[in-house]
Amino acid sequence: MVTMEAQALDAYLQEVFPQLSGYRIEQADAESVRVRLNVADRHLRPGGTVSGPTMFELADVAVYGAILSRIGKVPLAVTTNASIDFMRKPAAGRDLVAVARLLKLGRILAVGDVLIFSDGQDQPVARCSLTYSIPPRR
Amino acid sequence: MVTMEAQALDAYLQEVFPQLSGYRIEQADAESVRVRLNVADRHLRPGGTVSGPTMFELADVAVYGAILSRIGKVPLAVTTNASIDFMRKPAAGRDLVAVARLLKLGRILAVGDVLIFSDGQDQPVARCSLTYSIPPRR
Amino acid sequence: MVTMEAQALDAYLQEVFPQLSGYRIEQADAESVRVRLNVADRHLRPGGTVSGPTMFELADVAVYGAILSRIGKVPLAVTTNASIDFMRKPAAGRDLVAVARLLKLGRILAVGDVLIFSDGQDQPVARCSLTYSIPPRR
Amino acid sequence: MVTMEAQALDAYLQEVFPQLSGYRIEQADAESVRVRLNVADRHLRPGGTVSGPTMFELADVAVYGAILSRIGKVPLAVTTNASIDFMRKPAAGRDLVAVARLLKLGRILAVGDVLIFSDGQDQPVARCSLTYSIPPRR
Repeated sequence: MVTMEAQALDAYLQEVFPQLSGYRIEQADAESVRVRLNVADRHLRPGGTVSGPTMFELADVAVYGAILSRIGKVPLAVTTNASIDFMRKPAAGRDLVAVARLLKLGRILAVGDVLIFSDGQDQPVARCSLTYSIPPRR
Repeated sequence: MVTMEAQALDAYLQEVFPQLSGYRIEQADAESVRVRLNVADRHLRPGGTVSGPTMFELADVAVYGAILSRIGKVPLAVTTNASIDFMRKPAAGRDLVAVARLLKLGRILAVGDVLIFSDGQDQPVARCSLTYSIPPRR
Repeated sequence: MVTMEAQALDAYLQEVFPQLSGYRIEQADAESVRVRLNVADRHLRPGGTVSGPTMFELADVAVYGAILSRIGKVPLAVTTNASIDFMRKPAAGRDLVAVARLLKLGRILAVGDVLIFSDGQDQPVARCSLTYSIPPRR
Repeated sequence: MVTMEAQALDAYLQEVFPQLSGYRIEQADAESVRVRLNVADRHLRPGGTVSGPTMFELADVAVYGAILSRIGKVPLAVTTNASIDFMRKPAAGRDLVAVARLLKLGRILAVGDVLIFSDGQDQPVARCSLTYSIPPRR
């Protein structure tokens, strides 16, 4: 079911998105993809909260990874829609861990959702659902 | 963890929302609430598809039920936001089954999400996340 | 810019969605489409509030109308995503009026948003954005 | 109607969010707030596209600015929900301009939406709606 494993995904994401740093694909199987973000100062807002754009980016990377894990290298898939709920303040000084699942992988559109946790915590700090437009394959 | 069981929830929803018909709360536990909708002609669009508003209503009932299952009878909780993805055409002539989980139950806001399936199918036809404003308790 | 005028749109919607009742396309021009819903008992929740699914349906009809006004009869366009904010309680005993604008009309996807008002009021009761998948044209 | 003018808003945002750079509040009146982002290399993805998180951040700043323009300095307002549609590829080498309007300013929640344009273009590249939780005022 999985076309790319965690390690191959990780290498590919670093290759196509060299701007991203601090991310690591920890796991990729038929059920879900797990991504860890090593939170650094540049991700923070005053008071030590992780910024909204950082959580959005993490969610985007996680679902994008879930798509790639299934269909392989498709560099041109683009995010067309995202809906995100910020539910709790992330714990200070901890990594963020995103767990994404793919709900639909169609010919034209893919849909996934993701829960984001402060590492070691039970309750999610955010949830996000995302839609991607998949370019026609030749 | 559960304040109201499935049967009590079912009775309460029928009492406060007498306009709703065809719904049944099948299960309510600490993890999730499952609601079945007996699809009838009034829920359909041309071609036999279940209408979008019907799936929205089912998602709303399911997450509302999940809130009630935890905090008991709070008739004034109101939906403030919903985001829904319609992913597949529901199978003709089948019930819809919604499985909702509560992701946050705060003092002011509650957030839940839900997957909707055609009965007996593995792949969800829709996903929805909803936010509710909870009135102050005296 | 407008392929179908309000009256033609109205007739077409009644033809393809005979289940819908109480809707009237009041205006359709290059900027926006305005749809009126004659609120009836079946649209209400206890306390006289218009139900969420009713507002969702109105938003869906309005943006769908905006698409049709531009590209003509495309019965197979389907809603793939909707995000709705319920912001105020609609005034009792008044029509709802939706004003939709088309933000993107692509080859594959169309996106529009809509504000819903209680007739005669300045402040919107709800906002909604919707995405539609447009079938390939032969 | 406007409690803080564009210049005061600009100064305040730089004070409370020193991490943000490249933003300028250009205009703030009763109708809308306009924010310009000077797009730099750090905002780009391969191919010269502005990244999704950058557009999300711009939308967030613009609606937050619209709230502040009306109620003054409320540093603790937090984003609880956002829904964003990415509709077109931003033009290369141009600023992004966001125009936000406030749709609801309640005691507990505020809702706004925003269109984002490549500077000088008519068609929006993205739309976003956001909800904020407003802390109780003493």
